[in-house]
Amino acid sequence: MKLTKDQIEDIKDQQSQNNQTKRVTAPKLENILYEAIPALDHGFVRVVDYMGDDTSIVQSARVSYGKGTKKVSTDEGLIKYLMRHWHSTPFEMCEIKYHIKLPIFIARQWIRHRTANVNEYSARYSILDKEFYLPSQENLAAQSISNRQGRGDVLKGEQAEKVLEILKGDAERTYDNYETMLNQKFDGSIIDEGRKGLARELARMNLTLNTYTQWYWKTDLLNLMNFLRLRADSHAQYEIRVYADIMLDTVKKWVPITYEAFMDYRVGGTEVSSKGKEVLKKLIKGEKISIEQSGLSKREWNELMEAFDKKDYLV
Amino acid sequence: MKLTKDQIEDIKDQQSQNNQTKRVTAPKLENILYEAIPALDHGFVRVVDYMGDDTSIVQSARVSYGKGTKKVSTDEGLIKYLMRHWHSTPFEMCEIKYHIKLPIFIARQWIRHRTANVNEYSARYSILDKEFYLPSQENLAAQSISNRQGRGDVLKGEQAEKVLEILKGDAERTYDNYETMLNQKFDGSIIDEGRKGLARELARMNLTLNTYTQWYWKTDLLNLMNFLRLRADSHAQYEIRVYADIMLDTVKKWVPITYEAFMDYRVGGTEVSSKGKEVLKKLIKGEKISIEQSGLSKREWNELMEAFDKKDYLV
Amino acid sequence: MKLTKDQIEDIKDQQSQNNQTKRVTAPKLENILYEAIPALDHGFVRVVDYMGDDTSIVQSARVSYGKGTKKVSTDEGLIKYLMRHWHSTPFEMCEIKYHIKLPIFIARQWIRHRTANVNEYSARYSILDKEFYLPSQENLAAQSISNRQGRGDVLKGEQAEKVLEILKGDAERTYDNYETMLNQKFDGSIIDEGRKGLARELARMNLTLNTYTQWYWKTDLLNLMNFLRLRADSHAQYEIRVYADIMLDTVKKWVPITYEAFMDYRVGGTEVSSKGKEVLKKLIKGEKISIEQSGLSKREWNELMEAFDKKDYLV
Amino acid sequence: MKLTKDQIEDIKDQQSQNNQTKRVTAPKLENILYEAIPALDHGFVRVVDYMGDDTSIVQSARVSYGKGTKKVSTDEGLIKYLMRHWHSTPFEMCEIKYHIKLPIFIARQWIRHRTANVNEYSARYSILDKEFYLPSQENLAAQSISNRQGRGDVLKGEQAEKVLEILKGDAERTYDNYETMLNQKFDGSIIDEGRKGLARELARMNLTLNTYTQWYWKTDLLNLMNFLRLRADSHAQYEIRVYADIMLDTVKKWVPITYEAFMDYRVGGTEVSSKGKEVLKKLIKGEKISIEQSGLSKREWNELMEAFDKKDYLV
Repeated sequence: MKLTKDQIEDIKDQQSQNNQTKRVTAPKLENILYEAIPALDHGFVRVVDYMGDDTSIVQSARVSYGKGTKKVSTDEGLIKYLMRHWHSTPFEMCEIKYHIKLPIFIARQWIRHRTANVNEYSARYSILDKEFYLPSQENLAAQSISNRQGRGDVLKGEQAEKVLEILKGDAERTYDNYETMLNQKFDGSIIDEGRKGLARELARMNLTLNTYTQWYWKTDLLNLMNFLRLRADSHAQYEIRVYADIMLDTVKKWVPITYEAFMDYRVGGTEVSSKGKEVLKKLIKGEKISIEQSGLSKREWNELMEAFDKKDYLV
Repeated sequence: MKLTKDQIEDIKDQQSQNNQTKRVTAPKLENILYEAIPALDHGFVRVVDYMGDDTSIVQSARVSYGKGTKKVSTDEGLIKYLMRHWHSTPFEMCEIKYHIKLPIFIARQWIRHRTANVNEYSARYSILDKEFYLPSQENLAAQSISNRQGRGDVLKGEQAEKVLEILKGDAERTYDNYETMLNQKFDGSIIDEGRKGLARELARMNLTLNTYTQWYWKTDLLNLMNFLRLRADSHAQYEIRVYADIMLDTVKKWVPITYEAFMDYRVGGTEVSSKGKEVLKKLIKGEKISIEQSGLSKREWNELMEAFDKKDYLV
Repeated sequence: MKLTKDQIEDIKDQQSQNNQTKRVTAPKLENILYEAIPALDHGFVRVVDYMGDDTSIVQSARVSYGKGTKKVSTDEGLIKYLMRHWHSTPFEMCEIKYHIKLPIFIARQWIRHRTANVNEYSARYSILDKEFYLPSQENLAAQSISNRQGRGDVLKGEQAEKVLEILKGDAERTYDNYETMLNQKFDGSIIDEGRKGLARELARMNLTLNTYTQWYWKTDLLNLMNFLRLRADSHAQYEIRVYADIMLDTVKKWVPITYEAFMDYRVGGTEVSSKGKEVLKKLIKGEKISIEQSGLSKREWNELMEAFDKKDYLV
Repeated sequence: MKLTKDQIEDIKDQQSQNNQTKRVTAPKLENILYEAIPALDHGFVRVVDYMGDDTSIVQSARVSYGKGTKKVSTDEGLIKYLMRHWHSTPFEMCEIKYHIKLPIFIARQWIRHRTANVNEYSARYSILDKEFYLPSQENLAAQSISNRQGRGDVLKGEQAEKVLEILKGDAERTYDNYETMLNQKFDGSIIDEGRKGLARELARMNLTLNTYTQWYWKTDLLNLMNFLRLRADSHAQYEIRVYADIMLDTVKKWVPITYEAFMDYRVGGTEVSSKGKEVLKKLIKGEKISIEQSGLSKREWNELMEAFDKKDYLV
């Protein structure tokens, strides 16, 4: 990630702010506010604003449950209770805003989370930066055989080199042709004063999907956790996981108690189906149970055995 | 509005906070933060948190339109432009949280605005306060004859007194019976140690719709403006308009530039239908036009003539 | 539940329709279309429209996963897969619309599910029906001691009678006074031609929360399942569960394959936290584990032991 | 647009369905159900399901306004009233589902409308079709000078040819390289049995933004009208307008009364700001008014004069 002079200046300016407020603050998050945390080769994650902290969740829960919450003596106890019982609305009381730079094909996955507010850089108005994502060698994975949406072994040697060469070559050529069609360089300079450029809203269609875009993305804590649960998961595409992991760390700095509860009940937790429960009950009793008796599919059976360390039961 | 000792204490505590932050602040809103602004006889509006200010809208717009916004030199010019052209997403970048106390029948109107986060006091968990809305004499209006959902003349004398007597009497009796069924007073004291109380989730059904409830209500600036546009309008029910007017004032303190644009383009503006446009064009040309030629209904015609000061054209 | 003549007529008319369509249909749901299924003492649930069936989910999933779904040979296999892996969007492709009559205090719980479309009977425009919910004797439960939002034993004898007397008496008196203030009976007849009635939007505030209202409520299958998961749960308030159970049955008639998967993976399933997983692993291995070692709270521990039939481990 | 044999077969199958239903139907929409209406060079719009018709809107409105709507005698009168007064919820009672094939850069604009349900073809699971959008010569517009997001004159001759050559060449080369990296042709055949292909989720990043994708897109009538109002507007990008225009026509076939009201009050209507109103009032009175007196910006002033045919007042 290389920031432009302007960006570095902007960030400094923002970070030098020192305002007084009667609102609650999250000191650890304040420490990294506005900072551009690198993601992939040219991307970044910046927390640019936030509202509320762990106590805001507690405050809202206490208005809902009124005198009823007096029994739960600590904030931590209450937050864990809310998380365990899927009480959602108190977690909506915190809000965060990120500035994100990311490749377009990842932006397309990301935007499917609809409960967020977004302002994206518009290629109808402006020329996109000349930056494209090129995977590092260890992320150049082959298609998985067993999982249609997964990755298998890492490609090596000549084949890996060829892939990188293609990705780099095509991104550069299509970008150069983008400039040619616009009759304008990425820095704004006109190429040939004698002719008109193609409309930006058309020229952009020549860019490849690894071109970087950027946006402001704002959401509440509940929806952020829904996003992170899916995107920080090991089944998520590596490239979006990089972002999710960084954001997970910002959640830890922002609402540390909620973060712990989230890791315990959501991220580290497991769901067991009605049939799966019957299997576990038998195993606990020390009884024998076979996949045929369980009514589970092979895939379900194996997922269950993996989750509960019964490797010898894998079929 | 009478706050309890605990509430007064809480507000003092909250207002005495003095935190440092690198976030933007809205100084005029900070001045009234946490304050309980009275609404109706027992209700209030409190701003308890916020995120962003006018510059946040501009910042987001500039990331969207990139270098394209350099031409619009001032923040004010840009905000007006966004408002005029219904650019919605930049206004979603600001967020505000209110603590509201309001009668249940108004809460039922309010909640129809779905794009907000809400934590309401739960009468399953706790006993509701012994407070009900009683309209002041000048708000005791008769049913409008011409408008099925409107109010007509103010009721007077004996009839007004009778209405108030009914409202007060029924609210008090049903509340007393609520306590009797709960076997518990509003202050938590048990009435008769020898018997069990009815479940709170059942007993509450005996309360009248003017009983006060309270909630935390959080929304973004765009959706807040949508709410205010409808609820601060002269066609809105008086009781919700009281809240909307107070909130409109908090918007002015929070994002003054956006407030001005909102008043000019939304609140003070008018929509003219395709047929209505043709009528206005003729009037501007000094031509004659009749309701028959216009294709407008009587109601539409009159609304248009009212809006453009052609009282002599009313039919 | 007693329908008016007009309603009975309307339902007959609607049910006598016999249209041709190229859309998919759900024959078992067609059988009960428009029918008023009784709920509580005066309420009902009616399915009044729907879109899609199990094959619509499959169709959408197959466009998403393209050639990738050929491997999953059956529709049932695919729907189970989607449910198990929390693929949400294909389930959003089905839509259903209900006409519901329900008490206001239940409507207030219900409306908190925001992802639905609602048109409620407006008491600003019209007079509400003279119908209020009175619990049957076996549903008159005392407040639970252990669970602040739950019910305990059923009230009996004199106390139960007294509660019913209060509920009935207060509902009737407040309704009579509602009519008096309106100067109009529920059937529309004017009481005293010589005086004006109070505006409907005000008079309604005198009604108790067990008064019935009605609405059209439309949602997609995913959000319906979210609703049912919470509201058909044993922790939900009995009065809303009655509605949820009826609706669950309509889901079975509409999308039978999805219904089965929903019951297995959602309704009958359990979530196990990260710490809970460790406990289960030890139990499966036949090792001893105590609540202290587990890091679980007493409540969590007991919930886990209940779920997995280790009653002797309850503390 | 060229459909594959499979697609043609599928459409025939779907269209040959002839089911009985008690639901309302929209006969004119039934006529074109499932049909692939061509859009751009390889795209299409297909209506694949719908729920409700004009009478569904009326039905919901009548439950809301109860006996209050008896006065409005006709369905048409009621729908116009609802549209004029921005009553939104009755229009949410109709739902429609489209199958759309469109270029990725247009899909990225489209998806910003969040209140819809979407299942997109996933390039993690499957190989994208070898189809890219190439503008026809008359749509190859230069960048507008005056409007940063608009188009100016059409490019001609050699320059146009060069642009088309670039777009075609780059799309084909990047697609060929996509196949090379996947080690698989678009028809599924393996290129070199001896080596592994790059994971699909990575290889796709090499494609250009004019590559076609497809999705099922489902929304309610209110949100569809919001979409169409913006995207069928003359300021929308031509390529998305092509889709919006086709969809506008499907709305006409589906809910003809609502369509007329929409065209009159929304599409053909104008908004006039508070300051703009004062200007129009003066013009109607025959008084002089200058831009300086008006308080309007030059752009606002000109927009107003354009809208009301005062070309001689343009500045």
